[in-house]
Order: sequence, then C-alpha cells, then structure tokens
Amino acid sequence: MSVPKNVYVAVIGTGGVGKAFLSQLEALSHRYLSSPTPKTRISLVYAARSSKAVLANAYHDPIPISSWSDSLNSSSTPPLEPPALADFLAKAPAPGRAVVIDNTSNEDIARSYPIFLSKGVSVVTPNKKAFSSDLDLWKAIFAAAANGSGPATAGYIYHEASVGAGLPIISTVKDLIETGDIITRIEGVLSGTMSFLFNSFMPIGGANGGGFSAEVRNARDLGYTEPDPRDDLNGLDVARKCTVLARLAGVPVASPTSFPVQSLIPKELENVKTGEEFVDGLPQFDAQIEAVKQEAAKEGKVLRYVGTVDVTKGECEVGLRKFDPSHPIGGLKGSDNIFSFYTKRYETSPLVIQGSGAGAEVTAMGILADFIKVCGLL
Amino acid sequence: MSVPKNVYVAVIGTGGVGKAFLSQLEALSHRYLSSPTPKTRISLVYAARSSKAVLANAYHDPIPISSWSDSLNSSSTPPLEPPALADFLAKAPAPGRAVVIDNTSNEDIARSYPIFLSKGVSVVTPNKKAFSSDLDLWKAIFAAAANGSGPATAGYIYHEASVGAGLPIISTVKDLIETGDIITRIEGVLSGTMSFLFNSFMPIGGANGGGFSAEVRNARDLGYTEPDPRDDLNGLDVARKCTVLARLAGVPVASPTSFPVQSLIPKELENVKTGEEFVDGLPQFDAQIEAVKQEAAKEGKVLRYVGTVDVTKGECEVGLRKFDPSHPIGGLKGSDNIFSFYTKRYETSPLVIQGSGAGAEVTAMGILADFIKVCGLL
Repeated sequence: MSVPKNVYVAVIGTGGVGKAFLSQLEALSHRYLSSPTPKTRISLVYAARSSKAVLANAYHDPIPISSWSDSLNSSSTPPLEPPALADFLAKAPAPGRAVVIDNTSNEDIARSYPIFLSKGVSVVTPNKKAFSSDLDLWKAIFAAAANGSGPATAGYIYHEASVGAGLPIISTVKDLIETGDIITRIEGVLSGTMSFLFNSFMPIGGANGGGFSAEVRNARDLGYTEPDPRDDLNGLDVARKCTVLARLAGVPVASPTSFPVQSLIPKELENVKTGEEFVDGLPQFDAQIEAVKQEAAKEGKVLRYVGTVDVTKGECEVGLRKFDPSHPIGGLKGSDNIFSFYTKRYETSPLVIQGSGAGAEVTAMGILADFIKVCGLL
Repeated sequence: MSVPKNVYVAVIGTGGVGKAFLSQLEALSHRYLSSPTPKTRISLVYAARSSKAVLANAYHDPIPISSWSDSLNSSSTPPLEPPALADFLAKAPAPGRAVVIDNTSNEDIARSYPIFLSKGVSVVTPNKKAFSSDLDLWKAIFAAAANGSGPATAGYIYHEASVGAGLPIISTVKDLIETGDIITRIEGVLSGTMSFLFNSFMPIGGANGGGFSAEVRNARDLGYTEPDPRDDLNGLDVARKCTVLARLAGVPVASPTSFPVQSLIPKELENVKTGEEFVDGLPQFDAQIEAVKQEAAKEGKVLRYVGTVDVTKGECEVGLRKFDPSHPIGGLKGSDNIFSFYTKRYETSPLVIQGSGAGAEVTAMGILADFIKVCGLL
C-alpha cells in the first residue's frame, strides 16, 4: 500500500474563474481520495483575492477546500507579495510539490513567475499577460522552468487556458513542435466576443437588420463584451493570443503591439470617456463597416475577425478578413473559437480545433487539466 | 549539473508506422541531447518485426537509433515472446524507465500489456485491438497500469494514436472526464476511408458522375481502402473506435460487435473470395445506395458514415446518417476525420476536433507525443 503524495496548492484570484476552479478542485480532491488506490492528496494552503488572503495554519492542517470562501471572508490578512508567497511555499514539507494557480490577469503577479519556478514551485495559469507582454518576461519564465531550460529541480509552467480556455490549443502546439512537426501557419477566430459579433453581424446566407453598432450594443447587453466594448474592439486580446501562439511556434514576437492589429474603434471615439458614450456614438460610423460588409457580400463571402500567425514568414496579423461560407472559419456559429494549424504533416488540410473559448467553467477546466498534468510530473 | 535520466525503449513493429516512429524518435533523441540542459537520454534496447528482432548487447550499449534497420536486417534472432521481453526490460538499470512501443495491430501482443505494466514497464501504442476487444482485456490493462487502478510502481499505458492518429482525441476525452465534465455524446466521421468515400460520392452541392461502386474502386486504387475494401466497408474499424471512446467515457461496451453497425457490404458479396471479385461485383448493387443518396438530396442533405456514442443512454451506433451541409460533419473534406464532443460544459455547441486521422507520419506523431508524456512521468 503506497502513500499518496501530497500536493500543496496556493490559489491567487477568486473571481468567476477562481471560484469555478476551486469548485472543480474540490470535486477532484474527493475523487482522488475516494479512489481504491489514491495517488495524490491535494492540500489547499493559500487562497487570496485582491484585498485579503488566508493561509493554512500548518502544512499538515490545510484549508478545507469546501469552505475556502468562509475562511477567506473571515480572514483579515492581506495577500502575500509574490516573493513572500514563494518563500512560504518553499517551506512546504515537499517544496517541489507546491503549485501556484494564478487566476488573475495581473501583470505584476505574472512577472513574479520566475521567482516561484526557481524555488521549485510550479505555476498553472490562464494569465495571458505572462506570455504576451515583453519577450524578456517570456524568456525569463521558460529559462526558470523545468519544462523550459531550467534545472530539473525547478517548477513547471503550464498555461493551456491562456488561449482558447479549455480547448486543447497550447498542448496541441507543444505536441506538434516536440514531435518534430513544422508549423507553417496558425489562423483562427481567437475571441469569443469577436466571433459572436461577426456571426451576428454577417451570418451565412442570412440578411441582418441591425447595423454594426446595434450588434455591439446587443453583445454588450448580453455580457459578451467587456463593460467598455473598446477593450474588445481594439483587437489587443486577439493580438495577445497570437503572440502566445507565435512564440510557442518559435517566432520571437517582441510584443502584442509589434505587428499590424486592426482596431474596430473609430478614431473619433478612441478618447471618449465611458463605454456608454462609446456605444452611443458608434451608430454614426456604421456606414464604414457596412461598406466592407457589402463588398464581402458581393463576392459571396462573409466577414470574420481573425488572428494569423505566419510562422514561415515570422509575421503576425490581426483584423477583418473575408471567408467563403464553406470555409470552417466562415461557418463558425455563436461565440465559438476556431483554431486551424497548418503544418508539414497536416499539409493538405489543417488540424482544426473548435468550441467555446471563454467562460468560467471551461477556463477553470483548462487550468485543472494542467494542474492534473503537473501533479503527475511532481 | 544534473544527469539526464535514461529511458529504455523497445519497439515492436517496423512497418510504415514503426519506421516513421523510429525516424521521429531519432530526431527527438538528438534534440534532447543537444539541449543546453538535457533531461532525458533515449536508449533503444530492442526492435522487432514479425520475423526477427535485435537486442542491445547491454543496457549501457544500446542500438544506435540511426542504424536500427541495418541492425535488424543483420540479426538472426527471432522476436522475443512478450513475457520474455517483459523480463528483459525488467532487468534494465532503472526498470521503471522502460517503455514498449507496440506499433502492430496484433491482438496477442495487446493481450500481454498487463504483463508489461505489472512489471513497471510502460506501454505506448496505436493498437486499437487492445482497447476495443473484450471488456475483460480493457479492465485487465487499466487494473495493471499506474494511470489506472494499478500501484504507483506500475507502468503507464498511453494510446492517443488508437483513435484519430495524431489528433488530440484520447487526451481530450481524458481531460474532460478527469476535470469533472459530463460527456453526453460523441459523434463523428471516425474513418479516413469512409470520409473520402462519402465526400466523393456525395460532395456538398456537387453533382457526381460515378456510382458508389466506382467511388469504392477509385478509393482502393488511390490506397484509401484496404486491399479488400470489405475490411473498411464492414464498419468494424469505426465500431472499434466507438468502443474505445465509449469505454473512456464510462460506457462499458462489451465488444465492437455488441451494438448496431451498418455494413455497406451487400449480403451477396459477403463471401466472395477476393477483394477483386468484390469490387467487380459491386456495381450491380449501386441502385440501393443511390436511392438513399437521392432521398438525402431531396431533403437538401448529404450522406455521411458516422460513429455515435450516446453516453447518456449508454449506447453506440455506426452507420449512414443524413447531415445538413452547414453541419460540421456535412462540410468535411478529403479524407479528414471529425470528432464532436457534447458535454455539460460544451453544451450549446460541441468541442470539435478535425483533421487527418490516418497515415504513418501523423500516427507516429501521436505515439511520440505519448512517449514524451510518459518520459515526463518516469
């Protein structure tokens, strides 16, 4: 009878994704312990939101995962700074078995990953900023990680949910590269918001009443956009995802603003103060994008907002493109994402992965699947 | 400076897939060793085809991967029986770091997996027969594996390439299940041969000159079918893949013949002696399937040969179904496979994976990606 190995988990961020993750983690922990041959015991030793945190009294006395919320609410401890959290986790009975789950989109926390990794603490995260900001941060993270060029005693870095939420995108790129395939191009609809907007604005074969501004307002009211839709329409989210994919495929993209990204925000509305003012002002610019739509319609095509990584040329591009309705990108529905991988092995037709690429449950699933993989490696 | 861990590899089967695998393994081995921080050293200690085998002189003196073919050709040793091979590998300096790659579709070898696993030897394979024959074999394999209910000292079993070749199908099903999602239905075009046949016989919008028999002859001449096309048209290959997927999703399917499978072989041609006779006799039955095609055409639909696992009902079914051209299955092209996963989390629209699901290079890639994962766990 072998003893299950203890894995010590610290969770940063308890918003929508964080809550869903902790709920899935609790269920996983129960399944592990009720297995006839339990191999892993999960100990929650830290949970934090922006204003406060809760620490386990001791490593052998972890926070019950089922009551993390009560524990956190009744705490008056401020969150630990990342270096202090790294020191705390490095004192775990098996320091190589500590894992930080960063559910935030905080760039300061992302910049601290090398500290965790170099102390043998693994990091699992959907935080795009860690992988799409300056190239130096990317290099520092992978130089410090055991699954980069760091020593075998370092922590592992896993970030499936940074692109496509729970869809197996990062793992597929890694498998292609590690098995020696040559990726030539990656393209797709990388944003659920942009997918929803253009699938509504220009559905296949379907006439559509509303102008673009009406679609934007509707999407915002349904919660598909950020409160200020400019945070979606500037294209930066798609540019960040392209940056992550490009770097994984070996293209050393300097930053998400180092290549052409088509913003759908009219110049005149770039500096209005609120999202409300923006939505109110947008109708006067409907004619511009309507003209582009009509041009596509004349060719029998549909408009989609896509990200492209041309690996061969070492270039990225983000913006509107026209697609034939029979093209998988043209035929996308709802708010689905789609990713097409053109490679040496998948040459005549690409490897395609499609599905919901946003939402708390599927994002948490991507994080948890990574966590399970890291547990296997520890 | 840490010392790279040695992983000892035994390869069974050196046909198309085996050759491609060994070539990819050689390249991987070079990449590992030329890394600034090499973590794994791959030692090929055994290679076998049906008639002969070559063993390493000693564990510290492995077979050079680049010249496996010469070594095997000049050998006069017969292949080891699986139990003898398991004993040989259990004598490796680190017996828990030996991996058998079974590139065959041999059922006897599949039946020996529990022997390898229980001795701490891992198994990576595209061999469908191991996972789609009687349910007792499935249970025995996972009861013996470390990633089943076996002890932590047992070997790992990985079989991504048993369904969809290099497409991330098995790993996606596992991630869904392990993170607590509930799969309700899996459906798709699971055979490259059937995909090619029906995409040619009834392309979207396209009229087609040839009858079904002409398409079968053409597909055989192009190498898309087995030499005797009945080995594809009986539906057993698709039924085996459904069996694997169903069992992973928790449906205890007894065997690939325990549920309805529509054979496309006319009764009268089931017992003709050769594939040639079959192809010659097929035109006289064209009217039957042509009628089904015309019926679909009247509804504006296309015919596709699909496998369905209804996880909720615990049922599988394989056969012809009609699809709207805008449905992802209807829009498939060439010889691509497509897999749609309907789950609690991917409820409104499924998680879809599409691409080439057959061929030596992509099958070898699926095996090698598994091998890399197993190396990480050892």
